[in-house]
Amino acid sequence: MNDKKIDTQMINAMLPFVLRRENVARVEDGRVLIGDRRAYPFEKTFVTCDTVEQVADAIKGMVTQGGGAWQAAACALILLAQQVEKEPVDKQRQALERATQLLKDTRSTSIHLHRLVEQALAAGQAALDKGEYAPNAIANWLEEKRDKLLVVATKMARLGADMIEDGDGILTMCFAETAFILGLIFAKQDGKRMTVYVPETRPYLQGARLTAPSIAESDIPVKLITDNMPAYVVSERRVQKYFTAADLVTLDGHVVNKIGTFQNALSCHFYGVPFFVYSTAPDKQHPDRASIRMEIRDPADILQARGTPTTIDTLDSYYPAFDITPPHLVSGVITRYGILSPFDLARFFSEKGY
Amino acid sequence: MNDKKIDTQMINAMLPFVLRRENVARVEDGRVLIGDRRAYPFEKTFVTCDTVEQVADAIKGMVTQGGGAWQAAACALILLAQQVEKEPVDKQRQALERATQLLKDTRSTSIHLHRLVEQALAAGQAALDKGEYAPNAIANWLEEKRDKLLVVATKMARLGADMIEDGDGILTMCFAETAFILGLIFAKQDGKRMTVYVPETRPYLQGARLTAPSIAESDIPVKLITDNMPAYVVSERRVQKYFTAADLVTLDGHVVNKIGTFQNALSCHFYGVPFFVYSTAPDKQHPDRASIRMEIRDPADILQARGTPTTIDTLDSYYPAFDITPPHLVSGVITRYGILSPFDLARFFSEKGY
Repeated sequence: MNDKKIDTQMINAMLPFVLRRENVARVEDGRVLIGDRRAYPFEKTFVTCDTVEQVADAIKGMVTQGGGAWQAAACALILLAQQVEKEPVDKQRQALERATQLLKDTRSTSIHLHRLVEQALAAGQAALDKGEYAPNAIANWLEEKRDKLLVVATKMARLGADMIEDGDGILTMCFAETAFILGLIFAKQDGKRMTVYVPETRPYLQGARLTAPSIAESDIPVKLITDNMPAYVVSERRVQKYFTAADLVTLDGHVVNKIGTFQNALSCHFYGVPFFVYSTAPDKQHPDRASIRMEIRDPADILQARGTPTTIDTLDSYYPAFDITPPHLVSGVITRYGILSPFDLARFFSEKGY
Repeated sequence: MNDKKIDTQMINAMLPFVLRRENVARVEDGRVLIGDRRAYPFEKTFVTCDTVEQVADAIKGMVTQGGGAWQAAACALILLAQQVEKEPVDKQRQALERATQLLKDTRSTSIHLHRLVEQALAAGQAALDKGEYAPNAIANWLEEKRDKLLVVATKMARLGADMIEDGDGILTMCFAETAFILGLIFAKQDGKRMTVYVPETRPYLQGARLTAPSIAESDIPVKLITDNMPAYVVSERRVQKYFTAADLVTLDGHVVNKIGTFQNALSCHFYGVPFFVYSTAPDKQHPDRASIRMEIRDPADILQARGTPTTIDTLDSYYPAFDITPPHLVSGVITRYGILSPFDLARFFSEKGY
């Protein structure tokens, strides 16, 4: 697939509601509009922010998540650059730098968010250096970045779609976002019939709230299940392929993703179902399993479902948010360059100059 | 453990609230009181029934479940026998027979419930034959049956407790009731420290609502987790033993239990954690896996948690209620006679004249 042939506007329009860029976050009439993923799929609404601080609060409050956070943050910088444009250049610069720090602090451990917000800042600073209009420079950077990432996701989706065979049952976990959903859409365009099984992904219910409705919106048959059902569904031979995204892939091929992915991998392994992971590249900050610091979240979240108590609030609970799937359970890592063995990631990407 | 040495009153008093027989169901002042497992652990309340029909509705409406259903049904027959005691004997007999059918229909596939309600009926009929007072005969049968089952559960619990080592982490699924909870209590009495990890068991949340609060009530450390976490918790080496009950064990050692048990077994197998199943005996109606007809429940139940929608109600979903763990993943079946290999159940129990 040649980059030049990929029409990102057309691809964006193919995506379900929550993933289309204008619904993730946009600047409009001196405000930032952020698609409210807490309200979806019950309502398709936006949270409106008048300041960088409000955007930061929205990101912290999970109005958007996953790949949405950095886009909302970039929109916040565009908004701020508009608001301070009459001030002296050094004041503008300081304001943008302070805002960048504030936005990075919304997800203190997300290297992905940090890197992208810094790139947005750099685009604004470069414009100020050249006496150009900073808001446009950041907005252009944002659209170009979105285009580039969508081109990468489209290439990965094409590789994934070609792994799907007519009649396949597909299992996933959490919300694997653009490459995964686009892979399903491409396979459907190729005339392949599928049924996708989506675990609800407790306690935050990303599978129930984001993944299953997005697949249904794309007119692909989808069945929501609870998180205790994947192994049984696989044992019924309803599943022929597994696809997930990853929060992080180590250089030695360990896949860190939303809790539940690992036990799904065990089920797939037991029944010989290929297990594929969408990931643009391994994380060179993380050579191996030992380098991963796992995030433990507020145990109180386990005691409720969408705010309704599931048990008494005096009960002790435990909320590890992610798990680790070892490379020998991973059939292939779907990158923009092809579907790689998890055991060859370090060598392959070092040759790419990564 | 000698039967005669088991003080069932004392053992009953050791149990947590929901499992004590007087809280499961009792006849009092011309009414049946059924402990409301839908309200527990938020409230410790009883549903009061004036008629057999009301008891049947309560069982159908899941006021009680698991081992509670047959006890509520037996109480309904005691109540009815009281209500019709002035009528001619043949009318009394007919009334009890009609009621028995009504009570069996509350769980059309539960052979266990059917067998026990028929035994309760037989106790009443035998009394009528001899010109004795039927309500007392059924009540005596009920208490003797409860005693016998508690003696069996106590023996099984003793065997399970001896498998637990000081410092063990224990994983379970759903609500394994008396033998399991008693096993933990015995181990604690023996001076062993434990932490029990309890998956919430979606969609009906038996783990969150019944198991975890019952263990906490017994002053044993317990941590509630969601159903996507067991494999990760096992991978952290937090779990040294697995215990579950079973809805059914086939003669060839397949374990049918609440959905999620099988994927827990895969995790235990992967990490070498012994997987134990409490079961009084295999089911001779079910020689093998092929003989099992799996129950599929209302898919709408997947779209909510305690009545709160988890996603849009137009979404398709799938609700298999049970799964099957093959015998090679089962370390031992804890019966009253000892901890047997799942592969030797048919031979062992046929020698016992079963």
